[in-house]
Amino acid sequence: MNKIFFIAGFALSFNSLIAQIHVSGMPQSAANIMYRQQEAWNAGDLEGFMIGYWNADSLLFIGGGGVTTGYDATLERYKKGYPDKASMGHLLFTNRSWTPLGRKYALLVGEWELNDSTGGMYSLVWRKIKRKWYIVADHSSD
Amino acid sequence: MNKIFFIAGFALSFNSLIAQIHVSGMPQSAANIMYRQQEAWNAGDLEGFMIGYWNADSLLFIGGGGVTTGYDATLERYKKGYPDKASMGHLLFTNRSWTPLGRKYALLVGEWELNDSTGGMYSLVWRKIKRKWYIVADHSSD
Repeated sequence: MNKIFFIAGFALSFNSLIAQIHVSGMPQSAANIMYRQQEAWNAGDLEGFMIGYWNADSLLFIGGGGVTTGYDATLERYKKGYPDKASMGHLLFTNRSWTPLGRKYALLVGEWELNDSTGGMYSLVWRKIKRKWYIVADHSSD
Repeated sequence: MNKIFFIAGFALSFNSLIAQIHVSGMPQSAANIMYRQQEAWNAGDLEGFMIGYWNADSLLFIGGGGVTTGYDATLERYKKGYPDKASMGHLLFTNRSWTPLGRKYALLVGEWELNDSTGGMYSLVWRKIKRKWYIVADHSSD
């Protein structure tokens, strides 16, 4: 009986996490990518977290410190800001809206929360490249 | 002679202001709109400042307080935050990059500065509607 409750509770919490990421119109594949990013972050795995981003020199990351250009520079920025698992803490994404920008691009707006204490907004520009969705620009703010 | 210097100085300052707004690949019409927005803000004219935004219920404004949806709600938000000309102060845009997202959309990244004291970044999603460019989403952060 306890086992059933445990499994049901686990399924429920998984579903509620997916529900916070999947919003109306968002392709399931993009929602899955963000879910995996969140899981990787919470496992202290920054390289795994980066799977959502387009691995290109043109990747744009806009944050408090200005603009970072390129996948490698963005990963370096994260590594400097979060040198270990403890500093990364627990991340939670809650998406608000997915807006198609033509057929090959979309804008995703959502909220990030770290350790139930700090948080802010992000707007992500996604691009569909060979049937797969990638983040090509990320603006994250407090 | 002084008159010539004055006119030359004026033309120079106008050109340098336009130069800070126009970046590689940006349509001149979009640069002109942002220049007019900056002028309207600095004249204390919030309605005039709004000319760059798409007048639609789907307009997205992402700021410190979260997401504001719709042109009217965005104008109201500005009016509350900046009730008079003195509170608006002096705004300066410095654009960094214009990235086409297909043929009908683009992402503009730049810096805003208020009274040479506070400032931050913005990322604007532009959409071409009947040959005119409009801002359909604005993420502005400190």
